[in-house]
Amino acid sequence: MKESRSANNSSNKLRAAKQVRPVLDLGLLENSIGFALRMATLHATQRFHQVMRPLDLRPAQFSTLVLIGLNPGVRQRVLCETLRIEKANFVGILDILQRRRLAERRADPKDRRRHAIFLTKKGHALLRKASRTHAGLENTLRRRLRPGSVECLLESLAALG
Amino acid sequence: MKESRSANNSSNKLRAAKQVRPVLDLGLLENSIGFALRMATLHATQRFHQVMRPLDLRPAQFSTLVLIGLNPGVRQRVLCETLRIEKANFVGILDILQRRRLAERRADPKDRRRHAIFLTKKGHALLRKASRTHAGLENTLRRRLRPGSVECLLESLAALG
Repeated sequence: MKESRSANNSSNKLRAAKQVRPVLDLGLLENSIGFALRMATLHATQRFHQVMRPLDLRPAQFSTLVLIGLNPGVRQRVLCETLRIEKANFVGILDILQRRRLAERRADPKDRRRHAIFLTKKGHALLRKASRTHAGLENTLRRRLRPGSVECLLESLAALG
Repeated sequence: MKESRSANNSSNKLRAAKQVRPVLDLGLLENSIGFALRMATLHATQRFHQVMRPLDLRPAQFSTLVLIGLNPGVRQRVLCETLRIEKANFVGILDILQRRRLAERRADPKDRRRHAIFLTKKGHALLRKASRTHAGLENTLRRRLRPGSVECLLESLAALG
């Protein structure tokens, strides 16, 4: 009983802390899609870092693992385009994944000047774990939404992206 | 006539370039709220940088100007909390705005240990210009959405944020 009261107290505190925020007049930010996108992404990314800390994966690293895992032999250029990451920044991401022996570059047998990218066994194993963690995070996000609004949200974000 | 055809060609090319992207199997990223948020925010932020370049304002600087303009005498801590920016990072933003003579800190007459933040005349003038640019950008984003989905999007983003 005491425990549940203290849980209630702490959730009340959280709610109170949340209510502290909108004391400011937000003006045009109130209905700004750009501002709302940044705030929601900031929150989702913070949560991502929290849950993925044990696996030491950042969002772009995780997305890269997913894409290589599903598209073995993919080229770097295609990964950059899909994830909309500048090539200069992407090289760093891929270097980290290679150094951690999660991914590897092999010469493309059809065109030896090109490199095809694959996951290692270790990469596949980490991806499986990370995918489960990611699914949990997605469920947490979905529970914050009104029933039925996930589709509208995903459709709108795709249209904006 | 020739001009319009070349304009069509280049928009066809853009469309073709867009269609190149989803050749990869996106797997769990396809319906990931987190991934969709990051992609949409990336796009919106790139557009923000493009249109605000003449005014030399980044998203967090603009949001800060908006909040100070509407809430004169606001405290730094409240700005950080509202914008969810770490105090250490926020100090840099405020320094830039002060160096550009857009904002100023004054001792709070009620509590001299605290500082109240105000916009300068130059800050108000820049905010007016930037608000018009921001409105144009928001309209561009809204035009990408299906009619009626703005409310659902803003409500969902607020629930996630």
